[in-house]
Amino acid sequence: MFKSTSNYPMITVEEAWRRVAAQMAPLPPRAYALDTALGLVLAEDVCAVENMPPFAASAMDGYAVVAADEGPRRVIGEQSAGPDREMVVMPGTAARIMTGAPVPRGADAVIPVEYTESDGDTVVLHANVLPGQHVRPAGQDIAIDDLVLTSGTVLGPAEIGLLATMGRAQVQVHPRPTVAVMATGDELVPLSEALAPGQIRDSNSHAIVAAARACGFDARSMGLIRDDIDSLRHAILQGVQSADMVLTSGGVSMGTRDLVKPLLEELGVVHFGRVAVKPGKPLTYATVRGVPVFGLPGFPVSSLVAFENVVRPALRIMAGHANIWRPEIEVHLQHDIAHAPDRTEYQRAVVIVENGVHVASTTGVQVSGRLKSLVGANALLRLPAGRDSFRQGETVTAILITMPEVATTR
Amino acid sequence: MFKSTSNYPMITVEEAWRRVAAQMAPLPPRAYALDTALGLVLAEDVCAVENMPPFAASAMDGYAVVAADEGPRRVIGEQSAGPDREMVVMPGTAARIMTGAPVPRGADAVIPVEYTESDGDTVVLHANVLPGQHVRPAGQDIAIDDLVLTSGTVLGPAEIGLLATMGRAQVQVHPRPTVAVMATGDELVPLSEALAPGQIRDSNSHAIVAAARACGFDARSMGLIRDDIDSLRHAILQGVQSADMVLTSGGVSMGTRDLVKPLLEELGVVHFGRVAVKPGKPLTYATVRGVPVFGLPGFPVSSLVAFENVVRPALRIMAGHANIWRPEIEVHLQHDIAHAPDRTEYQRAVVIVENGVHVASTTGVQVSGRLKSLVGANALLRLPAGRDSFRQGETVTAILITMPEVATTR
Repeated sequence: MFKSTSNYPMITVEEAWRRVAAQMAPLPPRAYALDTALGLVLAEDVCAVENMPPFAASAMDGYAVVAADEGPRRVIGEQSAGPDREMVVMPGTAARIMTGAPVPRGADAVIPVEYTESDGDTVVLHANVLPGQHVRPAGQDIAIDDLVLTSGTVLGPAEIGLLATMGRAQVQVHPRPTVAVMATGDELVPLSEALAPGQIRDSNSHAIVAAARACGFDARSMGLIRDDIDSLRHAILQGVQSADMVLTSGGVSMGTRDLVKPLLEELGVVHFGRVAVKPGKPLTYATVRGVPVFGLPGFPVSSLVAFENVVRPALRIMAGHANIWRPEIEVHLQHDIAHAPDRTEYQRAVVIVENGVHVASTTGVQVSGRLKSLVGANALLRLPAGRDSFRQGETVTAILITMPEVATTR
Repeated sequence: MFKSTSNYPMITVEEAWRRVAAQMAPLPPRAYALDTALGLVLAEDVCAVENMPPFAASAMDGYAVVAADEGPRRVIGEQSAGPDREMVVMPGTAARIMTGAPVPRGADAVIPVEYTESDGDTVVLHANVLPGQHVRPAGQDIAIDDLVLTSGTVLGPAEIGLLATMGRAQVQVHPRPTVAVMATGDELVPLSEALAPGQIRDSNSHAIVAAARACGFDARSMGLIRDDIDSLRHAILQGVQSADMVLTSGGVSMGTRDLVKPLLEELGVVHFGRVAVKPGKPLTYATVRGVPVFGLPGFPVSSLVAFENVVRPALRIMAGHANIWRPEIEVHLQHDIAHAPDRTEYQRAVVIVENGVHVASTTGVQVSGRLKSLVGANALLRLPAGRDSFRQGETVTAILITMPEVATTR
């Protein structure tokens, strides 16, 4: 069947996102081993069950003393970091003490070794010492029952360290969403094969898996699927059984071999099949057995831009992130750009900071097939429908994918 | 031995970095399978050996026609994306054609199906068509011999896609540096153990491994090493044999159990052992059998800040990055801050964009043991030596670790 009109009404980018967001929810929390939880979102409030430090600890290498004391002190021994030797520092005495060691009973201050002189048996202080000096009281950093990390915190290196300090070998987090990626199209061959006439190599499955991994998700390629309804049905069903989300690329245009939309209608519910966006008009969103399936366009740039704008924020909801969007910033255009006024357009651009101002240049010809327009790009310029051009010096909104480079003085 | 003066002269942050940088070089290039090369740095120029598209391809679903022709056309067949059916379109005829399909010989334009009407045998065009319209000529995106990616390019999703398009199953890249991480200290216990008096849990090995992984490096924990010269020697030698860099934490102060510096002197060359920086004064850098070894301080914040400022840029040189620094930006202080004037200080801060201006607040008490001062921080404020305070509204330099959040309208 080769129809001249699409079954699917054209909807706006905003309406498309509303329909996606309406059905996305954080994946149910699960216990992860701490060392596998980097980048995940905490799904519990974490309160301290111990003080940190658990005991009054020395902040320096030096001598534990009684601050009010005077004159030379007799050295009664040494307390290293480690087991408490249970010494008692009385007036007239001092204990050698190392950074992190428990401060012996009786002592109320630590004087750094740099300000002392010792023959081994006695120590003379060359500086005043105040009570409490260089002593970290028990619970100074964290007190028992302190709410240390709240549900919703993204676990970075410091948070991982803090959870280790608190003895949390496992933590409740929203799981890392798993994504099954497949490319469709009889014209496609795997990347290691030679091309026969009419053939091109599959690049989308590689690029989309990489895009999902770059955002911290767990992506897996299901490879190339033929334009054959049974192969495709089998692959999509396998995908929804094994992953939290399925991404297809290709097969969503109006051609006679564009089987993805009719198949998704058969297997589940198609929530939209056309969006007023450039690139990516045929973007399709369905749910099959409760699992979201995005039919990404076959053009390489279209599929990556659709991933950025719709798939990534959807996956971030599933991963439990409160902040699902890339930062957006106003940028000054370095040159005129033309734009199709009928749709929201995302042009690939390089944004840098020059004299404190964010400026943007697009990455050349913006046709959907041209992957080179994404090479080196660190931003998408969002050009609203309704205007056909923007002038050099005008301000537009940039969605920042990586941080703009800034001239450094270092 | 408990000495009151350090053997190591205090050097500036800048001098410390010069000594590190002088000995770092990109790791020798190696072939990586394309799907494992995300985030790595290309170590070859990549030229196209084929055109892309390899043939004149339709950009739309529609009919391949002779543009100059007029009237209804007889439909001679269908060309899908995939093997070339070798049809010939003559004046008076047209071929159904799908997006990505090779344009049949004789045809010079494609009219989208939306602008046509067909009974199956003939097709009538409802719009004008110009020669070349909706046809992507062979080599439009990439022509044979084009320099497509240059050595030094960081491989993101688009670059991975482009390399797949060009049939590159393997690419020459600088390898992902491997990092062996160990924590030292008799006071430390693994995170799942209960604490006896004087003990704390190892958090640094977990946090540093996470920090290295968060930057895309291949980090591995060697766990806890006792403050025992033989255990430590064995571990460091094992580290330098199996990794591109070794990171220790703890044992670099002036205490009697601070064995790391003397051991590194025995095993290799110590290039510095004290830096005028807060936090992180005892930071130590050595080479052992040609492998860089950093002795990070034992305080959790000190070790992570030293990782950020010295270890990360060193690893980025090894990974082949030209741009090794985080972006730096001027920020307005939201409140007064005190600062020790004798050293360069890095205070942990939250930077956000408010009305187009970057503003910074520090994360509370900045003592070195307080990991909470890193929780939620997305920047380090670099406070130069020579001043003892900075006032609300003043401008200081922020090193951005993650992108500042911006109020979005979306």
